[in-house]
Amino acid sequence: VTGVLAPALARRSRAVRSGPIDDLFALTAGRQDLVSFAAGAPDADALPVDLVLPATQRALARWGPAALQYGSTQGLLPLREACLPVLAARGIQVSTDEVHVATGAAGGLNNLGMALLDEGDTVVVERPTYGPAVKVFRSYGADVVDVACDHAGLIPEALDAMLSTRPVKAVYLLPTFQNPTGRTMSAQRRAAVADLLVRHGVLAIEDDVYSDLRFGGSPVDALWSHAPDQVVYLTSLSKTLAPALRTGIMVVPPRLAEAVLALKQGIDMQTSSFTQAVTTELLRAPRLAAHVGATVDLYRRKRDALVNVLTAGLFGEFTWRVPDGGLFLWLQGPRAFDADALLPTALDAGVAYLPGSAFHVTPEDGRNTLRLSYASPALPDVERGAARLAACLRQHA
Amino acid sequence: VTGVLAPALARRSRAVRSGPIDDLFALTAGRQDLVSFAAGAPDADALPVDLVLPATQRALARWGPAALQYGSTQGLLPLREACLPVLAARGIQVSTDEVHVATGAAGGLNNLGMALLDEGDTVVVERPTYGPAVKVFRSYGADVVDVACDHAGLIPEALDAMLSTRPVKAVYLLPTFQNPTGRTMSAQRRAAVADLLVRHGVLAIEDDVYSDLRFGGSPVDALWSHAPDQVVYLTSLSKTLAPALRTGIMVVPPRLAEAVLALKQGIDMQTSSFTQAVTTELLRAPRLAAHVGATVDLYRRKRDALVNVLTAGLFGEFTWRVPDGGLFLWLQGPRAFDADALLPTALDAGVAYLPGSAFHVTPEDGRNTLRLSYASPALPDVERGAARLAACLRQHA
Repeated sequence: VTGVLAPALARRSRAVRSGPIDDLFALTAGRQDLVSFAAGAPDADALPVDLVLPATQRALARWGPAALQYGSTQGLLPLREACLPVLAARGIQVSTDEVHVATGAAGGLNNLGMALLDEGDTVVVERPTYGPAVKVFRSYGADVVDVACDHAGLIPEALDAMLSTRPVKAVYLLPTFQNPTGRTMSAQRRAAVADLLVRHGVLAIEDDVYSDLRFGGSPVDALWSHAPDQVVYLTSLSKTLAPALRTGIMVVPPRLAEAVLALKQGIDMQTSSFTQAVTTELLRAPRLAAHVGATVDLYRRKRDALVNVLTAGLFGEFTWRVPDGGLFLWLQGPRAFDADALLPTALDAGVAYLPGSAFHVTPEDGRNTLRLSYASPALPDVERGAARLAACLRQHA
Repeated sequence: VTGVLAPALARRSRAVRSGPIDDLFALTAGRQDLVSFAAGAPDADALPVDLVLPATQRALARWGPAALQYGSTQGLLPLREACLPVLAARGIQVSTDEVHVATGAAGGLNNLGMALLDEGDTVVVERPTYGPAVKVFRSYGADVVDVACDHAGLIPEALDAMLSTRPVKAVYLLPTFQNPTGRTMSAQRRAAVADLLVRHGVLAIEDDVYSDLRFGGSPVDALWSHAPDQVVYLTSLSKTLAPALRTGIMVVPPRLAEAVLALKQGIDMQTSSFTQAVTTELLRAPRLAAHVGATVDLYRRKRDALVNVLTAGLFGEFTWRVPDGGLFLWLQGPRAFDADALLPTALDAGVAYLPGSAFHVTPEDGRNTLRLSYASPALPDVERGAARLAACLRQHA
């Protein structure tokens, strides 16, 4: 019997085998002693448990059965309205017509991949990039290629060369507090990339889920603001409110809207009216600003703790840039360093990280890098884990 | 600018253009005078608004921040546990290992289509069948073919002939209170179809979201119970609890689990922990049985009202079988009757239905049929709408 079903899988099922991230979660599950810098999940203390019950009460009182019923595929209008000021603060001036609710930013990205990609299409990504996005593009048969980046993000000359060489369906970017590197593209770079998009007639997907977690420096307007007709903008409320709301927000150029909506009908019909109604009430809550402020402050202190311990414990072999926000610190080791090979030793020493290979189209390119997420462990654990990691890296680099 | 993005759509975006269902919702939006038998949405009075707030309170008290955090892709273990007795009552004896939480039954179906289907694969469906499922299969490039059915469901000889003719990737069935016909496959037919699945080594997807809405007669064990290794079973809590919970449940054979989970990571990462926790508490609520009982009773009275008025108002030109449960009555007209052509006239007369063509792989096959959903209009409106419809059909058949 077991043999009968195996050949029935689609080819794409082989393209999305569990990767190092999934394996790591299996390895670390239930290890209370371990400090994990692997997961990108928010701190449990930053989740607004005490705001959600009153928001649910208000949502049910205001909408009644409509909060439990089927709803519009594009999303609840009051939620799309409540998002307009959030978007405007990032340089995105749109009407509710262009705002779509997605089932998390992940749901939005999948919806876009499905609407855009045919087998053999090329998608350009940053080097390194967010690994799960590469899997989504590959699940639709895309050929994913990366272009060189520096501390200010995608290098326009490298992108120009790539777009001049082959037909490209979409460019996928994370311009602000990038996962995994934490870096932010400068306004100048955004303008230069937007020029290339327009010149080559190529669409970009801007994935921006961390920009409200800014610790310092000045906000940079979204890439979208430089080329609104060429950019699909994607954000979520998972990082400042709660991942379990699964509320993603997309700004979709009108030409793509029909395809995105028709496919979303098949993907999940619509995002939950219930979580949309609760999210709308959370966005209207007077205490929200204080909650987000406290969350940003918490992550700033964790970033500082991590950076301080590493600075004291490592001497030049490893380099990093301190991010102005977001959840990630990216370490680059000596050329011979192998973050994949060191992982079992680090786990034995009581600390977990994600090897940089998980964020590279060609895993070998990332062998000497690793990603640390300071979001999830409690502050004292960040310090303890950083000390363990520094010791481990000193010994084995 | 508008021309730039249009050619960038995937081919599948053309395969899922909005169909008659979507057009109809646009046509009828905001018409307060209209009685719509078109939508399959639950009665607003059947949505458990007063159960959801206490369930949310209990969920937040029991799980705290975990109810707002990222969670397992397969779904919350307590929810999977709470589903076991629901499944056992349908002849499905499984452990939580085989139970997967999906983002609605729609999310589960899309997840399965993605895991199973390559371009050019064949999927067999009933004639007629649930139209949106056909769109999902086509969105993955499948060739969808239908086989003949009678009042007891799929005709085994017709299925055997089809499976003997060409390689088939999956058979999609709705054995209980089928959408759109309301019919239920007999136990004998289920056994015969299961035998064919085993003999031909073909997988079936059993879509069963209405079986808890039984008005009379005896429950029939799921097709799954006859061939557990060959059937993926799909259900949801949208019809007895609330669509907005978007909680689907799948029973997935172990051989498919890895692919289903790996792809779900990309589709939406996971179904909302928040709605899963609330759903778990709703399933544990002592008042749930009374709520479901009242819901079933409400729909039984609406079915009776619809059938009574149609029986009094139509004389032999139209035929139907009274369903033992679910939300739909299926009318078959004289050969020359054209339900698509009559729809504008019916809308003018203040009543909406879905033409049967929307439920056929070859729309022309369903021209003389139509689907009536009695779920959504209030009881007096069911009677008023049925009288309008009967008058309309008498005049134009």
